[in-house]
Amino acid sequence: MKYLEELIYRLKKRKQTIAVAESCTGGYLSYLLTKIPGSSKVFKLGVVAYSISAKEKLLLIPPSLLEGNEGVSEEVAKFLAINVRKILNTNLGASVVGFAGPQAKKGMRGTVFMAVADKNCARVKEEKINGNRDTVRRKASYSLIKFVLQIIKH
Amino acid sequence: MKYLEELIYRLKKRKQTIAVAESCTGGYLSYLLTKIPGSSKVFKLGVVAYSISAKEKLLLIPPSLLEGNEGVSEEVAKFLAINVRKILNTNLGASVVGFAGPQAKKGMRGTVFMAVADKNCARVKEEKINGNRDTVRRKASYSLIKFVLQIIKH
Repeated sequence: MKYLEELIYRLKKRKQTIAVAESCTGGYLSYLLTKIPGSSKVFKLGVVAYSISAKEKLLLIPPSLLEGNEGVSEEVAKFLAINVRKILNTNLGASVVGFAGPQAKKGMRGTVFMAVADKNCARVKEEKINGNRDTVRRKASYSLIKFVLQIIKH
Repeated sequence: MKYLEELIYRLKKRKQTIAVAESCTGGYLSYLLTKIPGSSKVFKLGVVAYSISAKEKLLLIPPSLLEGNEGVSEEVAKFLAINVRKILNTNLGASVVGFAGPQAKKGMRGTVFMAVADKNCARVKEEKINGNRDTVRRKASYSLIKFVLQIIKH
């Protein structure tokens, strides 16, 4: 919780806004980011892109990037962060995609890709998270919050 | 949890899909709807429209409906359900907006409006929920799930 509070506090202080696109976390990331009263000054939009069509039609991910990977890759995370930022022209866009459930291909379970974008550039990070489906969903959300915080502190 | 499981089970059985737009619940509704493994067959998109601009630009709510009410009304809920359904042409669209926090106008705290739309019509419901900000967020999410279930059972 302390990273979350620090992130909202810092963004508010800088008058910066954020939009997120999330997939494997299924809404939990947005739920966290709106947990602190007054977060509406900072958090403007969350898109839970839980289908290939949501990624393609709403977040304009090139179809070629979504083939054969269930919509989960470093590149997809990057484009999601870039494109979700553009929807409302927020200062930051962030995203998380990954394999949370037991249906993931061998060795891929718990692998998540996160990205943070501003107007000029996007940064991507890969992480391996242990735990059951819901644990991965929650931990991945916290990991993204830490990642955004780390980037805005530099 | 039993309503949630029944809803996902019934929608899956009918091969029906759903998209949601949520505001005061901040992502918790989407988080619940994706909690059950295999829910991706049913749940396609969640939009956490946490700002007036998200409601206006992404969900095409007429600006006149968003004036003087912080984006919270029966009409806004109705249009959100109708318009979020159209984004991916899912069978159902559902929405929840409301006043969860202590900043709400006198007497309005805990008031939520929910809507469920299919291709032909939209149904709206108002509810008063007791509890602190996070309790209202969680209870409103469960209320919407019960409301959708009630509608598809008729």
